[in-house]
Amino acid sequence: MIYFDNGATSYPKPQNVLSNTVYALKNYSFNSGRGGYAASVHTAEKIYSVREKIAGMFHFEPQNVAFTMNCTQALNMAIKGSVKKGDHVIISSLEHNAVWRVVNHLKNDGIIQFDTADFSFDEEETVLNFERLIRPNTSVIVCMAASNVFGVVFPISKIGALAAKHNIRFIVDGAQGAGIIPINAVTDNIDILCAPGHKCLFGNMGTGFIAVKEGTRLNTLIDGGTGSESVNPDQPDFFPDRLEAGTLNNSGIISLGAGIDFIQSRGMDKIYNHELAVTDCLFNGLSKNENVELYCPKPEKFKSAPIISFNFRDYPSEKTAAMLAERNIAVRAGLHCSPLAHTFFNTLDRGTVRLCPSAFTTGKECEIFLKTLKKM
Amino acid sequence: MIYFDNGATSYPKPQNVLSNTVYALKNYSFNSGRGGYAASVHTAEKIYSVREKIAGMFHFEPQNVAFTMNCTQALNMAIKGSVKKGDHVIISSLEHNAVWRVVNHLKNDGIIQFDTADFSFDEEETVLNFERLIRPNTSVIVCMAASNVFGVVFPISKIGALAAKHNIRFIVDGAQGAGIIPINAVTDNIDILCAPGHKCLFGNMGTGFIAVKEGTRLNTLIDGGTGSESVNPDQPDFFPDRLEAGTLNNSGIISLGAGIDFIQSRGMDKIYNHELAVTDCLFNGLSKNENVELYCPKPEKFKSAPIISFNFRDYPSEKTAAMLAERNIAVRAGLHCSPLAHTFFNTLDRGTVRLCPSAFTTGKECEIFLKTLKKM
Repeated sequence: MIYFDNGATSYPKPQNVLSNTVYALKNYSFNSGRGGYAASVHTAEKIYSVREKIAGMFHFEPQNVAFTMNCTQALNMAIKGSVKKGDHVIISSLEHNAVWRVVNHLKNDGIIQFDTADFSFDEEETVLNFERLIRPNTSVIVCMAASNVFGVVFPISKIGALAAKHNIRFIVDGAQGAGIIPINAVTDNIDILCAPGHKCLFGNMGTGFIAVKEGTRLNTLIDGGTGSESVNPDQPDFFPDRLEAGTLNNSGIISLGAGIDFIQSRGMDKIYNHELAVTDCLFNGLSKNENVELYCPKPEKFKSAPIISFNFRDYPSEKTAAMLAERNIAVRAGLHCSPLAHTFFNTLDRGTVRLCPSAFTTGKECEIFLKTLKKM
Repeated sequence: MIYFDNGATSYPKPQNVLSNTVYALKNYSFNSGRGGYAASVHTAEKIYSVREKIAGMFHFEPQNVAFTMNCTQALNMAIKGSVKKGDHVIISSLEHNAVWRVVNHLKNDGIIQFDTADFSFDEEETVLNFERLIRPNTSVIVCMAASNVFGVVFPISKIGALAAKHNIRFIVDGAQGAGIIPINAVTDNIDILCAPGHKCLFGNMGTGFIAVKEGTRLNTLIDGGTGSESVNPDQPDFFPDRLEAGTLNNSGIISLGAGIDFIQSRGMDKIYNHELAVTDCLFNGLSKNENVELYCPKPEKFKSAPIISFNFRDYPSEKTAAMLAERNIAVRAGLHCSPLAHTFFNTLDRGTVRLCPSAFTTGKECEIFLKTLKKM
């Protein structure tokens, strides 16, 4: 199988991810932070070491990194935990349903109003589009690092500066950016970063995190046992306990730590360069295919995530994907849970075929794909 | 290590759980329900087969079983999704913080009022204690299958009948019961069952589920991409999609399926009998130790989960646990995230030392523990 669905989950995982997972299943599958016996204590230390890795990568404090089942859960915790009745929220015009459905729910419940700020290929224009929508009661801006459909990158640092200037909480959805594009919570003025562990960070499925700036106040979405302050009828005030009720996915978390080790040993920049080169190869090949309509600009460093969206002939995207699947090439078709983005790029009627290469995608695989499509 | 902390998470896992996990990490780590390529389709089928296993065990429809990170998340989804402003909720007097903190949060937000119904060793009395608290606006009863501290079992079937009679939604926390004590959603009149996958069901940490009776309406706690009805700004109305936003923990879910296979091949009743026999051996030994104060009744089938709570000399429970840890015996001390239960059993001051054997605990291990304690 030639796998271009890394935007859904990365495959394959690095070898050390699998080996660390198996080791964790055998040796770190004990409840951390609850037991006083050696296996529990060692497990807690190991889990903490992954908080440190994430904190180091994105510039948070380790104790302010909490683990979730996926990025979606983290975004729900971040957004729903940040707003109060009467607030106004701004999201980008390319947000995933993990953001759009959340703000819609809050709007339907009469808690917030929200507006969408248009993406522009001109960074300053994008920032201006956010700025124009700011109201006195705007409390939160939510923006993705990169579009999961079109690969375009948002000027997170500039939007963060805008949010900071207006004292607005800035929540970043790192689903397609965290792990390849540099994200620095301090210099980018990010209050909360949400990310999956199983995409660009190469951990197993079932992992994600929410990382919050020191001092951030957050209402809880999920309450329960934390192994701390047990007589307190409320969630503890301190992180990560406030955001981690119940048992964690230890082996998943440890796999995520191994994924970060892999990135650091190979070099994040080197991985990004490789993925971008492969994406560029796909872009160039598709550009030369007269039956292809491409929806992305030519990949450019720090402006693009390794994601390409296209359609083939007048086929529905699902038909193209099915034909490729028959030829053992795995792509995803449809709306990619992002109707907003398709509305913006005018592709809502038939969706797009999406190609997401990874660190393991080879030039040879791209060639085979391009030749296969040419013959279709 | 002699491991008596199976109430936190079961260890070791059956051999087939590990082998199925590793297989799943390599072969089923694709996004199910989104892709049309073979690996994605096969993954979706495999995930569905686990829904079927859970549905078969507890008598739900497979499509009404949704996967979560843990039982706590499931309980939050069940309780918060069931109530509206002005509702009254009844919980038992032994509930875990995964329930107590949830209803407290809802109370603090001015949404609900709640009362706690006292546990009694007389089943009819327990049911009466719930019945006495019913008000015209009581919309939900939440009760655990078994206490995670004292092992006592609730008469779920009788409480379910009471709830059904009064048209009250019945939510069961199966954290310490699901997998050993028979739970039948149909005959027990359970509307929603929440359970972890990594305790009595022998799956990996990071797994749990919420199973709902056909036709149950539930507001969503977590919104996001479902791969279905993508243009819908709200979560889909149908299960499991309504309750599953974002990427699932595939290998964890498949490990849970393997855990159920293990239970069914060995026999749930046989496992329960073994665990109860081991618990009885512990109970008898502890009864003869004059330095031990025991808080549980003698284990009895269908009246007890394999859980024992005690204290040793006048030591804080943590001291006893630390001394046992030095001797390579893993137990848990403190409040076990259940201050309500300790208040009820009058052990809030120093908590308890908890012993939870599993299917893999041997009589020999119990003997070693009893002898070790005797010498302490």
